[in-house]
Amino acid sequence: MCRWLAYSGSSILLSEALYSPAHSLIDQSLHSRLGAETTNGDGFGIGWYGTPATPGVFHSTEPAWNDHNLRELADHVSSSHFFAHIRAAIGSAVQQTNCHPFRRGRWLFMHNGFINEFAAIKRELVLAVDPSLYPEIEGQTDSEVVFFLALTFGLEDDPPAAIEKAIGLVEAVAARRGVSNPFQGTIATTDGEGIWAFRYSSERQSRSLYYTTDVPTLRNLYPERQDLARMSDDARLIVSEPLGDVAGVWNEVPEGSCGIVGRGHDELRPFRPRPPTTAVPVAG
Amino acid sequence: MCRWLAYSGSSILLSEALYSPAHSLIDQSLHSRLGAETTNGDGFGIGWYGTPATPGVFHSTEPAWNDHNLRELADHVSSSHFFAHIRAAIGSAVQQTNCHPFRRGRWLFMHNGFINEFAAIKRELVLAVDPSLYPEIEGQTDSEVVFFLALTFGLEDDPPAAIEKAIGLVEAVAARRGVSNPFQGTIATTDGEGIWAFRYSSERQSRSLYYTTDVPTLRNLYPERQDLARMSDDARLIVSEPLGDVAGVWNEVPEGSCGIVGRGHDELRPFRPRPPTTAVPVAG
Amino acid sequence: MCRWLAYSGSSILLSEALYSPAHSLIDQSLHSRLGAETTNGDGFGIGWYGTPATPGVFHSTEPAWNDHNLRELADHVSSSHFFAHIRAAIGSAVQQTNCHPFRRGRWLFMHNGFINEFAAIKRELVLAVDPSLYPEIEGQTDSEVVFFLALTFGLEDDPPAAIEKAIGLVEAVAARRGVSNPFQGTIATTDGEGIWAFRYSSERQSRSLYYTTDVPTLRNLYPERQDLARMSDDARLIVSEPLGDVAGVWNEVPEGSCGIVGRGHDELRPFRPRPPTTAVPVAG
Amino acid sequence: MCRWLAYSGSSILLSEALYSPAHSLIDQSLHSRLGAETTNGDGFGIGWYGTPATPGVFHSTEPAWNDHNLRELADHVSSSHFFAHIRAAIGSAVQQTNCHPFRRGRWLFMHNGFINEFAAIKRELVLAVDPSLYPEIEGQTDSEVVFFLALTFGLEDDPPAAIEKAIGLVEAVAARRGVSNPFQGTIATTDGEGIWAFRYSSERQSRSLYYTTDVPTLRNLYPERQDLARMSDDARLIVSEPLGDVAGVWNEVPEGSCGIVGRGHDELRPFRPRPPTTAVPVAG
Repeated sequence: MCRWLAYSGSSILLSEALYSPAHSLIDQSLHSRLGAETTNGDGFGIGWYGTPATPGVFHSTEPAWNDHNLRELADHVSSSHFFAHIRAAIGSAVQQTNCHPFRRGRWLFMHNGFINEFAAIKRELVLAVDPSLYPEIEGQTDSEVVFFLALTFGLEDDPPAAIEKAIGLVEAVAARRGVSNPFQGTIATTDGEGIWAFRYSSERQSRSLYYTTDVPTLRNLYPERQDLARMSDDARLIVSEPLGDVAGVWNEVPEGSCGIVGRGHDELRPFRPRPPTTAVPVAG
Repeated sequence: MCRWLAYSGSSILLSEALYSPAHSLIDQSLHSRLGAETTNGDGFGIGWYGTPATPGVFHSTEPAWNDHNLRELADHVSSSHFFAHIRAAIGSAVQQTNCHPFRRGRWLFMHNGFINEFAAIKRELVLAVDPSLYPEIEGQTDSEVVFFLALTFGLEDDPPAAIEKAIGLVEAVAARRGVSNPFQGTIATTDGEGIWAFRYSSERQSRSLYYTTDVPTLRNLYPERQDLARMSDDARLIVSEPLGDVAGVWNEVPEGSCGIVGRGHDELRPFRPRPPTTAVPVAG
Repeated sequence: MCRWLAYSGSSILLSEALYSPAHSLIDQSLHSRLGAETTNGDGFGIGWYGTPATPGVFHSTEPAWNDHNLRELADHVSSSHFFAHIRAAIGSAVQQTNCHPFRRGRWLFMHNGFINEFAAIKRELVLAVDPSLYPEIEGQTDSEVVFFLALTFGLEDDPPAAIEKAIGLVEAVAARRGVSNPFQGTIATTDGEGIWAFRYSSERQSRSLYYTTDVPTLRNLYPERQDLARMSDDARLIVSEPLGDVAGVWNEVPEGSCGIVGRGHDELRPFRPRPPTTAVPVAG
Repeated sequence: MCRWLAYSGSSILLSEALYSPAHSLIDQSLHSRLGAETTNGDGFGIGWYGTPATPGVFHSTEPAWNDHNLRELADHVSSSHFFAHIRAAIGSAVQQTNCHPFRRGRWLFMHNGFINEFAAIKRELVLAVDPSLYPEIEGQTDSEVVFFLALTFGLEDDPPAAIEKAIGLVEAVAARRGVSNPFQGTIATTDGEGIWAFRYSSERQSRSLYYTTDVPTLRNLYPERQDLARMSDDARLIVSEPLGDVAGVWNEVPEGSCGIVGRGHDELRPFRPRPPTTAVPVAG
């Protein structure tokens, strides 16, 4: 499917998160261990926050493992808050407009997974997108449609509620059309301050998702490690597949959960899709 | 905007039409004389008919003038019926799914021009596409939406009527939304036998369109030319901008016309958009 | 490293050889079983002979598994003689000028393998290329340098002797510079009529290479198979990794061998590098 | 040929120099006024200095005018010292390894122009490159060979002397081979502190080159302009073609000159190629 990584903490070069760890995200583009596909070579994207109000986004259709521009960017751009995503296309074209993370204003959004039988329900889902947002849909992917549904349902005000409604709508439409197990995957979204990460699938066998133990605990575990000494107390990585293999670092996000990072506290709570209460139009 | 070329006649190497003439289509990618833009460097496409039932399509995001693969293909593929298109993007991304000619089954379609204020009426137009066709829309362009509207309105049975309804719908929706001069351009479509070429704009100041004089007449004009001796009697080129500058070769398609080539006879007739008689749904 | 395929026989659509077989070459771009690398996603190339004197060449930097243009070309171009190659880059850039097959005049050349510590001996090898050929070197790869050395040593007159001298020179220069196991790999070259395929490595542990049993024998083995009935008697595939898993189809080319296909007879003979007898200049 | 821009001064977003000015460099990629070619659509590159010791480099084969990644980078990366280059290829491939600026260690180098009949003298020039540097040549261009000749002749110690020797060698080899007017163009090189800019052609009709008036003078001329108030006193732009059309801003670098910016003082001095005193080897 895909693999992704979300970082928040003290400012670091992107390459410290993307390339340095053993079994790094870039390694996973060639050899993923836990992914539904072992190769994620159908493009990639990064989104990072810096001085300007909106995040920068870099999308490429080349495999990440051999992309010189990604290496240059990662070695020369620092950020305290960024997303990275490597893609394994299923059906849709390898083109920049299909690359994650998607952006609108201050918001980034990325997804590892899929909507089952998307072609059968795409029209009805796209119809439910706010007409004023509709012209901004740029690519072909199910993931981008979920993003625009979440924007329609208030992502910028209450991300968990908006994602619950978006996936709730996907499941409601799918039920009506006889599509089984409609949603699969993990999602991350951010406004540059908080990160909201979701793990959910209609069949309750979701793609993997991990987050790092808090840094003070890790420092106690590994008092000799210099890299931990340099990290800020609130630094967090959330990844679809662990980087490196240091014991005690990685914790699995439970099935059907939403993890919230930043804004003063971290939180893990249950995630349950709920279709929007307004009637969903039945398209011709 | 764009430039295009349609050929029908005896089988020739694509390069004979694309590269050989003075001021060839490939030259026009760098230096168009009559185009709204002088540079058409945002990708290109060719579609050609051969032994298989459906035409082959080659789309590239590179400027045509320096594309080695296009040169190779043109020098090694022969066809008796093909389309070529070079693109100057206005707003939409430079990606293969936005490149003309578009294809469905045996049909090819290409367009030079635009829908005015497309973002304002895109949703309503897309809603009018047959729901069973909707999932096949691949790109972002106004041109592809016109193609799918034409398919919805019976392109495969009666191309002029279908294009009349498609552009009629564009004009009807635009009128309701207060968009002026909604359609501009020239269109070519083919099923591998006939070619239908259209020149029309709502403001009656359409992009240019030319077709070649019939070959027997040209042979009388230029009895010494070997290239004409080799050509079949029924060979025709239709282009958005003349190639070469030999007197007597090029004839302008009149404003508001449809030209039909092949299937035993050629014909030039008036073109007038007419909105589909079935009520157009007013989208929310 | 890479994977390749060479076909000679009755004219077929390229897709019949590239896509149709189980475990096809295009499948191998994502999941090679025998390759030194399991992913060959750093571009690909095809070279095919048709009506023009020189073969057509199509090179792409995209992974073959998702390339629409390759699929279109393969579905619409027929040839009785063609090469295909998928690449796993080691060190050099992913760019069209590094894609195989390389072409000069009527000749094609492709390679799966590498020159060990190429940077250390590249200059001396390039100096040995005929100065009149030197400006035609386009890319960065060790493979292309071997091709130009072979051209320098008479590839067009006696391919086995020229390849023997080219690899002999590589080994001689490497010995002087203290580079061990300098050459590894399999090579195929053709003038559009014969195919010469080589399997050799300095350490005598060469990349795999297979050729198909002759068609009449296969027809006796599988009298019910329609595809064999359609094939010409002289059809041959040579591949770096077997396609499909039908018993009796694939024969391994022995270590240190040269196989010759076409021109009336097939032949398998020992391959032994021999440095060119003219003194090799010792570059500063 | 090409167009380029070099900036040194207070830290600014790259987009302030690349996109904001009227008739900006990115505009010039589509519509150059003074260039030998009006379209510079064969790729581009930027090189920028930041926290790490070596500059970042971003190379793309897409036309700059429609490249989303360039726009993102320019809008989100700030630097006090950067180069930008847009390319019009003449002969060599459109690939990242042919894009300027070229980099080695802390140094960047870019060129607008060409070596006449490069194929005829390329081998001899490449032979003159220090053998330890030779394997680092990545692309096919004449410009990169001039960079490596300059590195060979001491670019890192005395840039003007090294460029004088590099171009002196080009002219000496060309004279021996009967190539007239061998060098044409403008060059910029930097170590992240100084900028050395050269305007020279063997025929004394060099590509154009301009530098900005010093900022204090401009502030006196235009006391009301806020952008000048924000700029540091030592800010300079050097460009192959003026941006905007404000009187008093742009000064032409004289024919056959070298301009030096930074390191405490600016300087303009004559440039005269001089072949290296060590004998140039005459290659076979």
